[in-house]
Amino acid sequence: MLTEGAEGRKAHEVNDMFALDPITKKAVNVTRRSTYPSNFLQQQHSNPELPASLGHVETRSYQFAFPPNELTLESGEKLGPITVAYETYGELNSDRSNAILILHALTGDAHAAGFHKGEDKPGWWDDMIGPGKAFDTRKYFVVCSNILGGCMGTTGPCSVNPKTGKRYGLDFPLITISDMVRVQKHLLDHLGIDRLLSVAGGSMGGMQALEWLASYPDRLKSAIIIATAAKHSAQQIALNEVGRQAIMADPYWKEGNYYAGHLPAKGLAVARMVGHITYMSETSMGEKFGRRLKDNGKEHKFSIDFEVQDYLHSRGNNFVKRFDANSYLYITKAIDSFDVSRGKPLQHAFKGIKAKALVLAFKSDWLYPASQSLEIVRACKLAGIETTYCEIDSTYGHDAFLLEIEEESHLVKHFLQNVSSDPEETSESEVVVYEI
Amino acid sequence: MLTEGAEGRKAHEVNDMFALDPITKKAVNVTRRSTYPSNFLQQQHSNPELPASLGHVETRSYQFAFPPNELTLESGEKLGPITVAYETYGELNSDRSNAILILHALTGDAHAAGFHKGEDKPGWWDDMIGPGKAFDTRKYFVVCSNILGGCMGTTGPCSVNPKTGKRYGLDFPLITISDMVRVQKHLLDHLGIDRLLSVAGGSMGGMQALEWLASYPDRLKSAIIIATAAKHSAQQIALNEVGRQAIMADPYWKEGNYYAGHLPAKGLAVARMVGHITYMSETSMGEKFGRRLKDNGKEHKFSIDFEVQDYLHSRGNNFVKRFDANSYLYITKAIDSFDVSRGKPLQHAFKGIKAKALVLAFKSDWLYPASQSLEIVRACKLAGIETTYCEIDSTYGHDAFLLEIEEESHLVKHFLQNVSSDPEETSESEVVVYEI
Repeated sequence: MLTEGAEGRKAHEVNDMFALDPITKKAVNVTRRSTYPSNFLQQQHSNPELPASLGHVETRSYQFAFPPNELTLESGEKLGPITVAYETYGELNSDRSNAILILHALTGDAHAAGFHKGEDKPGWWDDMIGPGKAFDTRKYFVVCSNILGGCMGTTGPCSVNPKTGKRYGLDFPLITISDMVRVQKHLLDHLGIDRLLSVAGGSMGGMQALEWLASYPDRLKSAIIIATAAKHSAQQIALNEVGRQAIMADPYWKEGNYYAGHLPAKGLAVARMVGHITYMSETSMGEKFGRRLKDNGKEHKFSIDFEVQDYLHSRGNNFVKRFDANSYLYITKAIDSFDVSRGKPLQHAFKGIKAKALVLAFKSDWLYPASQSLEIVRACKLAGIETTYCEIDSTYGHDAFLLEIEEESHLVKHFLQNVSSDPEETSESEVVVYEI
Repeated sequence: MLTEGAEGRKAHEVNDMFALDPITKKAVNVTRRSTYPSNFLQQQHSNPELPASLGHVETRSYQFAFPPNELTLESGEKLGPITVAYETYGELNSDRSNAILILHALTGDAHAAGFHKGEDKPGWWDDMIGPGKAFDTRKYFVVCSNILGGCMGTTGPCSVNPKTGKRYGLDFPLITISDMVRVQKHLLDHLGIDRLLSVAGGSMGGMQALEWLASYPDRLKSAIIIATAAKHSAQQIALNEVGRQAIMADPYWKEGNYYAGHLPAKGLAVARMVGHITYMSETSMGEKFGRRLKDNGKEHKFSIDFEVQDYLHSRGNNFVKRFDANSYLYITKAIDSFDVSRGKPLQHAFKGIKAKALVLAFKSDWLYPASQSLEIVRACKLAGIETTYCEIDSTYGHDAFLLEIEEESHLVKHFLQNVSSDPEETSESEVVVYEI
């Protein structure tokens, strides 16, 4: 299915994750701080009974695919060198069997857990990763890397094209979820991990987990696939298209060539607003804002009136400080074109796979409704994969995969224990479906 | 609840519906042709058994609220003169008891049925209005007018402000659903209709129907309230806010002062795309487009790939040819601020009302889910209004109120017969709930 490109034989560690960074002072302002909510951590340090934080962590970088051994992408185009920003938590055991790869969503990054020095906001899935948590770093070696096409340290459209000395912009090749996964595989090769205990991700992270399962089944014992789809529906494509159009309608976008000047901030903010509406549920929005008015000095008739408008504005405006508009285009395009089965019946993509699967969905998630998770479960079952499915009762909508920590932790812990303790794959296929 | 403004005593007919029209050649290009789908009509003329078309119809105009007798709006601001574009179908009977007011949605107009000379596309609800149809013009006198704040002949932000000789733009006062209804009441006064047999509308048209019921209960025998809400939820406000932000992010918007130059076409197109996603259901989008690709010469990497993208683009681009961006801002704001009960329990708004109500919702409508219609039904029942409710099984989403003609016609016909034959209000309240 995939054309294997030339390996990056000159691969080496790069300590400065921004090795390929700014060439102008007006560069995109990207930081690795997530805006995802994290409700559970801050008070946990004082109580030894409760899961603890990882403390300080660092993002590192790895470079590979140096010319003439560039990576051949799914499109056939070549790309290199490629820098991958990643973090690791916990220790790799002697037989290298305890590694788990965490896969981030559209706007996530390598900083999944712990704190960066000088910052008081933890990584985006800190509630799930750490000593005693779902991904227990006392037991497991956890790796998380920024995706190909991203803007948080891994090569993407805002990186400098070594051939021109300028930022790629739209010269960056179109990438796919499969390309992202192949870059992750190179990173794992570099880290000396032949076989993962598990891969885990929600939303676009779940798509990567599905792609891992379908493309490299021998390199993992299990996959945790959360709040995602095997391919986008017309409605899901349409919602992403609105975001892309909003960005491209911004006159500062300039066909992606904006790095030396103004950023297409208004367009990107609108794209983010659309996103946020789809991440929440009608109920969670209603509970959080209702029809409460915002008391503000009116600039004009169409300034903010309702609290929900203020929330969307601030989310949109914060986002443009940390995310690259071109990355948004490339990544949403990769999501829309993703189809793990390449047009064939889904169960064919999983045929003969011995890894186990945990599939999670959330009741109020209307962006990736449970019906799409159930399609994955059905295909896994038809393909003979041992699959556990749970639809968690939540009012948080799609955001639930970042917020429903208690139930999610319980299910993930149990699943990983089961996978860890299993000497080899079980012979019998069964689907365990239960509901919290 | 409402401050009655000075009546337009100098009111008179204006035959040219664009009496207040262009002052520059670069004017907004508005036409009265609807882009709503109309699937059922074209072949019906040949069969005398089937409902027939109204044939040619004309939009007329009425002007009132001439200074110093401007209309006092809900905000307290004054506005005048006001032009109302309207159409009528059928004949008003001798006791003036057969009039029905049709209320249009966000982007509709006065041209609800029949054909304008030289045009081959009928009015936006032609499937429902005409001889033998749901609103049977052999029995009823049907009136439809363009709303206040619109851009299809009725005074709105693209009209010329007589005080300045320039188009209003953001100098146009903020308007409410209640203001729209009061303008309609003035039109009915002009037409000599003291009491309506019914008011009927879907989406924002349903909000106007609710407002009629609450504000002028003595002037109507019944109300047909379709696919709407008594007030917007946070999510509904958020979706409109994205549209407004997209328009205002367009540099050509220029704080609403764009009439002499470029139009904020890209921003308005993005707003319309968001709208279209909410008008369809996941199912109807899936059935119509699936993941089919569009074969096109690629302009750049983010040009159209999927058919659904092409559809959204063409809908967005057609829309900017016929609709004014400032009207979009004013009308969505009126919708978001609408709360028929003004913060009180909903049943209080309907207390003592003798009119009957038909409330319709559609199963796959996620923009105005059936739960919001049921809130209306509950309040009507608590207030003692005789109410019929039906949730029609449909996969068309919110668009269903324009497409599920057969079931809708059946229910409306039956309801109107019941209201027409009833000499006066019944004493007993009952809720008839059934499902097709």
